[in-house]
Amino acid sequence: MNELRREPLLGRWVAVLRESMRPEEYRFAVETRATGRCDLCEEEHGEEVFTSRDDSGRWLVKVVSSRDPIFSTEGDLARKGVGMYDRMNTFGANEIVIESPDHDHQAEEMGPAQMLRVLDAFINRTVELEKDARIRYIFINKNYGILSGDPYGHPHSLITAVPVIPKRVKDELDGARLYYDYKERCIFCDIMREEERMQDRVVMDSPCFLVFCPYATRFPFEFWILPKQHRCSFREIGDEERRDLSKVLTVMLRKLRRLLNDPPYSYVIHTAPSRIPRRNQWHTLSEDFHWHIEVMPRIRRLSGFELGSGMYTLSTSPEDAAKYLKEVSHGD
Amino acid sequence: MNELRREPLLGRWVAVLRESMRPEEYRFAVETRATGRCDLCEEEHGEEVFTSRDDSGRWLVKVVSSRDPIFSTEGDLARKGVGMYDRMNTFGANEIVIESPDHDHQAEEMGPAQMLRVLDAFINRTVELEKDARIRYIFINKNYGILSGDPYGHPHSLITAVPVIPKRVKDELDGARLYYDYKERCIFCDIMREEERMQDRVVMDSPCFLVFCPYATRFPFEFWILPKQHRCSFREIGDEERRDLSKVLTVMLRKLRRLLNDPPYSYVIHTAPSRIPRRNQWHTLSEDFHWHIEVMPRIRRLSGFELGSGMYTLSTSPEDAAKYLKEVSHGD
Repeated sequence: MNELRREPLLGRWVAVLRESMRPEEYRFAVETRATGRCDLCEEEHGEEVFTSRDDSGRWLVKVVSSRDPIFSTEGDLARKGVGMYDRMNTFGANEIVIESPDHDHQAEEMGPAQMLRVLDAFINRTVELEKDARIRYIFINKNYGILSGDPYGHPHSLITAVPVIPKRVKDELDGARLYYDYKERCIFCDIMREEERMQDRVVMDSPCFLVFCPYATRFPFEFWILPKQHRCSFREIGDEERRDLSKVLTVMLRKLRRLLNDPPYSYVIHTAPSRIPRRNQWHTLSEDFHWHIEVMPRIRRLSGFELGSGMYTLSTSPEDAAKYLKEVSHGD
Repeated sequence: MNELRREPLLGRWVAVLRESMRPEEYRFAVETRATGRCDLCEEEHGEEVFTSRDDSGRWLVKVVSSRDPIFSTEGDLARKGVGMYDRMNTFGANEIVIESPDHDHQAEEMGPAQMLRVLDAFINRTVELEKDARIRYIFINKNYGILSGDPYGHPHSLITAVPVIPKRVKDELDGARLYYDYKERCIFCDIMREEERMQDRVVMDSPCFLVFCPYATRFPFEFWILPKQHRCSFREIGDEERRDLSKVLTVMLRKLRRLLNDPPYSYVIHTAPSRIPRRNQWHTLSEDFHWHIEVMPRIRRLSGFELGSGMYTLSTSPEDAAKYLKEVSHGD
């Protein structure tokens, strides 16, 4: 019989099918990467705000403003009512992390040293953007492949600074808070213990991180990278953790590519907000939230049922997904 | 400047772009409808549970069980803990409403009389399925077009009975309740007054329904069909409303097809749960929820940012979308 599982953080229900689809059964558009003229190669972008160079002065990673930003520092917040509704300006920033000068090589193909430069760029920009008190949240994500919405086909990720707490983030904070209020423990720390105990969903266990396919996910082969050290915010990551993460991310993205034959994917860094409304307390937040990375292979389309209900069907069980991901080689 | 708008029910933020994309600028896969052998034409489905016939005994609309259901009445609920997690059986039903014997003609092409038969099938099956006390929610939706996840290419919609309240439904109930607690009024009734007053997002005003493009939506050209009579549940719809709805839905789906050149779309009937946990009260629910239909054109892909944050970018403003939808002819 199929199984209905409850995602413990958001209370989402996921139907896990009795018989798992195998990796090779998933099909997506043949053209994974965008082709044609590349805006990033042609340097058609806004201001350069961060650069990481090699000894000869050649850039290896850089962060630029979007040429056509949705969020920008034009104007001010100007939050106001419009009849019964609420509006504000799209105050914030849209930045592009160009992960490599080479159009054809993703950071994970280049190896951990390049991945570390990318992580450094994320942290540097987070610290910088957070200085503006009008910024409430900094969202870092990568979309790889046409199906994931990548318009460039050039290795890059995105930093979006917004003046509100996004709904999905708020739901996650609320879920973690609810658990903390009841147990007085961090739900992510408890999930980590549980996964370490069960072992059947664990993919990788590094000095500083646990990688596993969570109990109930939206996408088949979705996995989370959770730091063993409890910290609410990504930008508080330590030096040793940063180096370890560059290896873990390199290995896992290589495994994903091999297993599913170069699939489109998105990953998102989930972290505590830069600023939260006064009645919530920083103190509690630092105890009840735990930053992590969620990697979602975009190998299937969401149905109208899923979009409308927030219930999902998982065609490969997390246990099988973990087994496949664990077994596949990450190359050298 | 772009504008950030708050969706009043869920608290979702939507960035509405300054310059709206026109209908003809949206591109989606050329093949809208699935081709090849049709399971529904070949009668490869489960048990027939409802049939609507013409005077000569020929069927016009029928409801069948899915041949390969995810939710079924095998076993029982069996909700239990698994370590720190929760699971239960996928108790429920997956039914397919075959909207026409003719593979190539959608209900809205056949006209209001056929659409009325479809609505009657929805209501008949809802009443029947609700009799099982283990069913908590009945989800009715239609996916049209390959991009919306329609596997048949045959006119049909889906009825899914589930033993839990789906997260998206719970969020909507919670949002409506929060507003009701503060204002002691239904948020949907208030939205309707506001839209009637503003007029710039109204597409159609029929005797029993208001059709409008809401203030902040996920999809461009999304519209809602809201009954003027306050009722929490779709199955309480009156006879006059039912006839009016069959006309409104026919006209609106024809308009949508003409305007966007046969786009894929999904629609979902949002209604109060069949059963809610005891501590919530039916009495309150009937005052604070208001059933309605949400129609989502699936003409763009969700980005990793949207999936991960729950914030959306709307490339055509609801005001412009309403103008286009109002102006386009629905044929005859």
